[in-house]
Amino acid sequence: MNREVYQEPLVSRYTSPEMQALFSERSKFSTWRRCWIALAEAQHELGLDNLVTAEMLEELRSNAENIDFDTAAAKEKEIRHDVMAHVYAYGKQCPTAEPIIHLGATSQFVGCNTDLLLQKQALQLVKKALLQVVVNLNKFCRQHKALATLGYTHYQPAQPTTVGKRHTLYLQDLLMDLEAVEWLEGQIKARGAKGTVGTQATFLELFDGDHKKVRELDQLVAKKLGFSEVFPVTGQTYSRKLDVKIAEVLAGVAASAHKFAVDLRLLSNLKVQEEPFAKNQVGSSAMAYKRNPMRSERMTGLARKLMGLVPDFYATYANQWFERTLDDSAIRRMDIPQAFLLADAILRLYMNITSDMVVYPKQIERYLRQELPFMATEKILMAAVRKGASRQEMHEVIKKHSVAAGKRVKEEGGDNDLLARLAADPAMPFTLAELEGMLANPAEFTGRAEAQTEEFLAEEVEPRLARYHELLGDMDSSLRV
Amino acid sequence: MNREVYQEPLVSRYTSPEMQALFSERSKFSTWRRCWIALAEAQHELGLDNLVTAEMLEELRSNAENIDFDTAAAKEKEIRHDVMAHVYAYGKQCPTAEPIIHLGATSQFVGCNTDLLLQKQALQLVKKALLQVVVNLNKFCRQHKALATLGYTHYQPAQPTTVGKRHTLYLQDLLMDLEAVEWLEGQIKARGAKGTVGTQATFLELFDGDHKKVRELDQLVAKKLGFSEVFPVTGQTYSRKLDVKIAEVLAGVAASAHKFAVDLRLLSNLKVQEEPFAKNQVGSSAMAYKRNPMRSERMTGLARKLMGLVPDFYATYANQWFERTLDDSAIRRMDIPQAFLLADAILRLYMNITSDMVVYPKQIERYLRQELPFMATEKILMAAVRKGASRQEMHEVIKKHSVAAGKRVKEEGGDNDLLARLAADPAMPFTLAELEGMLANPAEFTGRAEAQTEEFLAEEVEPRLARYHELLGDMDSSLRV
Amino acid sequence: MNREVYQEPLVSRYTSPEMQALFSERSKFSTWRRCWIALAEAQHELGLDNLVTAEMLEELRSNAENIDFDTAAAKEKEIRHDVMAHVYAYGKQCPTAEPIIHLGATSQFVGCNTDLLLQKQALQLVKKALLQVVVNLNKFCRQHKALATLGYTHYQPAQPTTVGKRHTLYLQDLLMDLEAVEWLEGQIKARGAKGTVGTQATFLELFDGDHKKVRELDQLVAKKLGFSEVFPVTGQTYSRKLDVKIAEVLAGVAASAHKFAVDLRLLSNLKVQEEPFAKNQVGSSAMAYKRNPMRSERMTGLARKLMGLVPDFYATYANQWFERTLDDSAIRRMDIPQAFLLADAILRLYMNITSDMVVYPKQIERYLRQELPFMATEKILMAAVRKGASRQEMHEVIKKHSVAAGKRVKEEGGDNDLLARLAADPAMPFTLAELEGMLANPAEFTGRAEAQTEEFLAEEVEPRLARYHELLGDMDSSLRV
Amino acid sequence: MNREVYQEPLVSRYTSPEMQALFSERSKFSTWRRCWIALAEAQHELGLDNLVTAEMLEELRSNAENIDFDTAAAKEKEIRHDVMAHVYAYGKQCPTAEPIIHLGATSQFVGCNTDLLLQKQALQLVKKALLQVVVNLNKFCRQHKALATLGYTHYQPAQPTTVGKRHTLYLQDLLMDLEAVEWLEGQIKARGAKGTVGTQATFLELFDGDHKKVRELDQLVAKKLGFSEVFPVTGQTYSRKLDVKIAEVLAGVAASAHKFAVDLRLLSNLKVQEEPFAKNQVGSSAMAYKRNPMRSERMTGLARKLMGLVPDFYATYANQWFERTLDDSAIRRMDIPQAFLLADAILRLYMNITSDMVVYPKQIERYLRQELPFMATEKILMAAVRKGASRQEMHEVIKKHSVAAGKRVKEEGGDNDLLARLAADPAMPFTLAELEGMLANPAEFTGRAEAQTEEFLAEEVEPRLARYHELLGDMDSSLRV
Repeated sequence: MNREVYQEPLVSRYTSPEMQALFSERSKFSTWRRCWIALAEAQHELGLDNLVTAEMLEELRSNAENIDFDTAAAKEKEIRHDVMAHVYAYGKQCPTAEPIIHLGATSQFVGCNTDLLLQKQALQLVKKALLQVVVNLNKFCRQHKALATLGYTHYQPAQPTTVGKRHTLYLQDLLMDLEAVEWLEGQIKARGAKGTVGTQATFLELFDGDHKKVRELDQLVAKKLGFSEVFPVTGQTYSRKLDVKIAEVLAGVAASAHKFAVDLRLLSNLKVQEEPFAKNQVGSSAMAYKRNPMRSERMTGLARKLMGLVPDFYATYANQWFERTLDDSAIRRMDIPQAFLLADAILRLYMNITSDMVVYPKQIERYLRQELPFMATEKILMAAVRKGASRQEMHEVIKKHSVAAGKRVKEEGGDNDLLARLAADPAMPFTLAELEGMLANPAEFTGRAEAQTEEFLAEEVEPRLARYHELLGDMDSSLRV
Repeated sequence: MNREVYQEPLVSRYTSPEMQALFSERSKFSTWRRCWIALAEAQHELGLDNLVTAEMLEELRSNAENIDFDTAAAKEKEIRHDVMAHVYAYGKQCPTAEPIIHLGATSQFVGCNTDLLLQKQALQLVKKALLQVVVNLNKFCRQHKALATLGYTHYQPAQPTTVGKRHTLYLQDLLMDLEAVEWLEGQIKARGAKGTVGTQATFLELFDGDHKKVRELDQLVAKKLGFSEVFPVTGQTYSRKLDVKIAEVLAGVAASAHKFAVDLRLLSNLKVQEEPFAKNQVGSSAMAYKRNPMRSERMTGLARKLMGLVPDFYATYANQWFERTLDDSAIRRMDIPQAFLLADAILRLYMNITSDMVVYPKQIERYLRQELPFMATEKILMAAVRKGASRQEMHEVIKKHSVAAGKRVKEEGGDNDLLARLAADPAMPFTLAELEGMLANPAEFTGRAEAQTEEFLAEEVEPRLARYHELLGDMDSSLRV
Repeated sequence: MNREVYQEPLVSRYTSPEMQALFSERSKFSTWRRCWIALAEAQHELGLDNLVTAEMLEELRSNAENIDFDTAAAKEKEIRHDVMAHVYAYGKQCPTAEPIIHLGATSQFVGCNTDLLLQKQALQLVKKALLQVVVNLNKFCRQHKALATLGYTHYQPAQPTTVGKRHTLYLQDLLMDLEAVEWLEGQIKARGAKGTVGTQATFLELFDGDHKKVRELDQLVAKKLGFSEVFPVTGQTYSRKLDVKIAEVLAGVAASAHKFAVDLRLLSNLKVQEEPFAKNQVGSSAMAYKRNPMRSERMTGLARKLMGLVPDFYATYANQWFERTLDDSAIRRMDIPQAFLLADAILRLYMNITSDMVVYPKQIERYLRQELPFMATEKILMAAVRKGASRQEMHEVIKKHSVAAGKRVKEEGGDNDLLARLAADPAMPFTLAELEGMLANPAEFTGRAEAQTEEFLAEEVEPRLARYHELLGDMDSSLRV
Repeated sequence: MNREVYQEPLVSRYTSPEMQALFSERSKFSTWRRCWIALAEAQHELGLDNLVTAEMLEELRSNAENIDFDTAAAKEKEIRHDVMAHVYAYGKQCPTAEPIIHLGATSQFVGCNTDLLLQKQALQLVKKALLQVVVNLNKFCRQHKALATLGYTHYQPAQPTTVGKRHTLYLQDLLMDLEAVEWLEGQIKARGAKGTVGTQATFLELFDGDHKKVRELDQLVAKKLGFSEVFPVTGQTYSRKLDVKIAEVLAGVAASAHKFAVDLRLLSNLKVQEEPFAKNQVGSSAMAYKRNPMRSERMTGLARKLMGLVPDFYATYANQWFERTLDDSAIRRMDIPQAFLLADAILRLYMNITSDMVVYPKQIERYLRQELPFMATEKILMAAVRKGASRQEMHEVIKKHSVAAGKRVKEEGGDNDLLARLAADPAMPFTLAELEGMLANPAEFTGRAEAQTEEFLAEEVEPRLARYHELLGDMDSSLRV
């Protein structure tokens, strides 16, 4: 690492080797060569075999990977044009093929097709990591499906739910992300062989006006590059609208992770649930005892950053003029890799945290017991209504005493005497004993939480995971952060 | 209109009556009543017919529309709770049903289901308007598919394209929006009957622990409200992640419109293409002759505003704590209607502009002629390469003379003498006559632009429009702005 | 209120009558008339008294307030130009002055100067409300300057601070906002009388080429409108860069309020501090006992919305072309009033909450006691180091036992036995009694918190408030929300 | 450069060595050592000279720069705490001082103070570059103060202005940025020596309860680090609100640059003004003749990116909980260096472009002549009004003929016959000859543009530059990009 200049921390700190490599110079320039080979092969196969010979193809293919970075860099410095510099460097290594490298193409032939290919691959890495988090949370939900815990609205105690049920909410959000990824996969098409402003004029020239051949060229190049579809029309580049969609899907993952991470940080404060604690981790020097939810905090910040990239993509697309302006170049060069690297970093954290999350049932129970009399008010209200009381009136009665009991706890540190107050109210159609009976079993306040969890996992999550059985095979090794 | 306080200009100026009405108080509160009726009916049908009687249902239904706003408003002022205030006002009108209105439900039963229903309907209005723009552009593309015009990259003249082909790019972006709308329709599900924190505890109580019945209740209510699906799990509210997706789809439309509007504003400067000019429109007082592209400018600004709303939705979702916090309330109350109203305003402008766009072929031709010698350079390059010249060397030759000829035009106001310069260069394997022959027919520089346009309309656009034949039936009346 | 169309909730729900009125049509159009009067007066005074007579001035002045909205609206509908429509309506009422209304001016003469004047006034309302919050917090800090409470980092218990000290942090942020407001006041200058594209060409014509007179006109109009400075140069409008600065200052207030509101919502969960509870407020129907921090939640959402407006202003400014494009119009028409209305709503909530905030010392003490042994670790560490122990080693010892003691609390619900564990460790140079002695007095763990609070209030806050004594005079009446 | 992983392009492509170095590891960790030395010195000077000896100070100072990165990195890997790792590495090199390094401090003592120092220095680099752009534009404005050119509103031809006057608008925006930088310099204060949660508890302990000493320590450390002020109160960190302000000031520069760059790109299309053309620059391979405004396009994209960072800072500050949460860490680690590097890259481009901008007077004149008859309409209107015509009627007359003449140009490619049409209208009180006389001299349509330019440069720009005479001394060498 060069310590004399700024280093992007995403690479030096947070991301997987796979994602780092995908957006490296090696990855980019070897994909350029894949594009040039695909173009030459397609030209050869579609009838230009006199111009683009089998021998040339062989030469190009055998030099696909041995990129001479230094020659290209020197040439770029001289002519200030990266594509022509790499055409030059490739041509040096392929003297026979030299005249037909990039034949009929414009810079964006390699530029766009490479961007699309890399993003397609990067999206697979994201999907795989996302699925692993789903696997982890699925397991966690199953494990804690029946563990009653306080629900919170306004971050004030509300009716109880279960730990598993709460986590189905994070899961459901991730499934929405997964569906968005799947939708997006269908939107990523090749830019193909379209020429300077998208009219394929040079290729039509090359093929002596044979429209059918030129159309086939477009599709054949796409197929050779592994795309099932090619954009029907483009300007000089593919529409940057696709970039917006990609950014949104990645930011969607970030948003889901952010929601989860903030909740986990609150749960850590309550000492009821925690991220796994790494051995030898030093907390702040002065506060050694703290189990700071640092990974959740980091996830929060990284997710904020990724969500914050989305407007860049909107502005870049919306301000493209005509067939293309180059105000997209520098910003995409930063934002596209950053977006994927951030998604990668976030999901690795999410995986790590969910792989071994700690739950403290005794603490959970303590909170439940403190709030139980309050939590029972809806049950009491419903029971009273069924006994003929007016909903509105009973609502008022319960409210009055609840507020009074709550005051007592806060202001005097006293016990919760809500049930006694209610029983003493003439409007209440139950004795104290009857009221106490209503809250003997905490679990019964969780309604269908456990059942919902089971249904959700069995009906929504697991069938999807089954579909991805193969992709998930070797996932476990990704768990370390 | 009240002139003494601020008035939201979206309503007073830019939007359709349908969209304005959809987000009115009448619309909202009558949808609340639809929710209460659906709940009562479902409870009745699933066995609570002793508690929720047929007579009550009849009473509720017959008061579905006659909302007593004043009673509700007065009550809300007193108790500061809008849902309870409307339960009260409804109950006043339905004395028999009063005890069972909202039975077992929490505020978000009406809140969320209503939000979802209104957004579902609003999305249909957006889709319909979007389709009409597609219809307009489809017609425009067909009409101008063969009209050659300068392409632009860097907003500098580039290889020619056709007017129709250029507009297929806007169309393709709108089709991506349409696909996003269709995807989104599948994501909008009912919140159903889930109870305070989503556990359905109260309903389970009501149905004496019968899980099957409670699950049916959830689905039956959803069905009665016109949803084909219900979210499997929720907290107190449906996941605000869906709001993000909705905002993104609307902002996607805005982004497409922005890209188009900016291009049209540039074309207006070039005097080659214009938005329809409204009669009696006064330009600036001092510059009466100007045909200012005011609708495109307005579209630009409104689109920027709509794109700018997306981060609000991310932040709101990502910062929800546990089963729900109320920091979503005020912001959603503004942002959701605004997002739909903006989309409506933008699409109405887009419809209006594309319904009768003006093209000036003589001006287009003038620009083409000025740049034709430059534009032929790729053709000359290719021809020379086929004659055996080195691509790199020829590139340099052409570049040198192009720059010189360009300089002459700019600095001296002289004629473009590029061809003469090229012919005089010993490295160039063509005579002046040969070079001039190469650019005799401007149309041949547009490559496959016309063919692409035809293929795109026939294969991509029109089949989709055919699918929406019915929805588009009465569209023409929406054209006036 | 019109219940048939969407109503902006900022007006119907959250804001002060003053701010609502400031951005009303009445306010806007009567300011236009102020501009026209100022222009005519200045023209008269600078020598055009033959053209612009005293009689005309009198006529204009006496019709300054009686705006005929309907005539103007009808004319605008016809000619689609709001300024000319109001010139017409004013002219109808001032038949003598009619030919000289708006003489030499362009629409943006009234447009920009009015925008600037209204924002100047609106900023005063914001400043006044901001100062009142400072007053409230100053009082609160003084009151609770010595009340020890847990500090939090990572939202984990950290060294104690005091309630007052914590609130000096919110105060300091508000003082930074105040300084930004003061800076901004110096940046808001008049647009003056600059003509169509800012060259003052028409005015130079009117004054027969007398540059000095035209320069004076610009400054005199500004002075008459209450500005101390006029922008030296403008295009058609004043630079929208100023709008960015205004938005940032308002969003700065929002950000400060957001930070405070989120903290208060967390404190509410802890039951240690609360917003004042309004009488008759109904919590959720089913959870009557809850004291939901609804104003803080609302403040959070409104602040998020206001912060979210900032990028609109950047994009609008940064994309203005040349002397002016009209893509700024619709978005400014929404965003400027919204920004001020949001700031107003937020500050009114902030005022209300801080006017009577509730603190629960017994709860605060309970938390302190639970964490005291942990909190003492830094003190113990320092003491041990002073006794010769290695900082690093002692750090490890304390860390080990802290983690173990923490585990015991979470996993077993047992007591905190940290001190005993430490005393038993051979590396620790203190007995249990010595250790216990170190934490006998909680207050001594708060370091200089109380002193800092006193110093901060006396040196930073109160001198500033003193400066604004007059402005603050009648503030108390604004306290009700 | 490592070609196997992603490399941040800001460093590899666009920025100055000074700014890259400022945010390097070397810069950061050597500033940490400066902080530790300042702390030790202050402790020594304020009476802890027994604990912190002169010998120790000497040892610390003599090892200030020889950072052992590898030892620190290895230790950090082990204990996962960067500050303690560097304390360790420093201690290894300073065995005597080892026990007192970081004495009484918390990680954020070095973290915050270093962040503040680096940003202070970075801001100076930004200011210097900003001033150089001001110098360049000042010169350019003076040079072209009288060159008449079309003004544009709606990007339609409007009254003429001058090239110099137009550029005073960019200048004025930059002066607003400069004032913002100056304001910001006063806001950046030291975090000082505040302890874990800002209470200075440990330091109070160290100084045996001597408040005065501890307060002096805070200020003395700040002074030693080169700050003139220290924040009166902090939590664990300085308020992240300051980060927002810094980001806004930098984004303000970006916004100014964006506005300028977009205008220049439009001017390039018109062939009236261009960025300097670099020798040997290769345009697109197929369009060698194009003079693509690539630096302006890059500036546009980089500026968009920098403006896009601002919301990150708002969100990070507004979501900090209590004395500090660590969700600020990863995002600040990326966003702060990025913001300064982007500002640096943008200003270097802005400097480069304005150092040698090309203007084409003949092209400018051609446009003027085409539009002159239209441009004269305001003059004609005014003249007619002074001759007694009704403003409204004359407005209509001129409008009608202007639109007709405009149509002729666009639709028929014919000449502009506006004057003839006007002269033939009975309502017009002038002959054709009189009308033609009115537009004989183009310069007279520019009103006070030249005078305004002179006044603005002499009164607003140059006095400020004079103030920075010294800072600007060695600027010229920065001009190469």
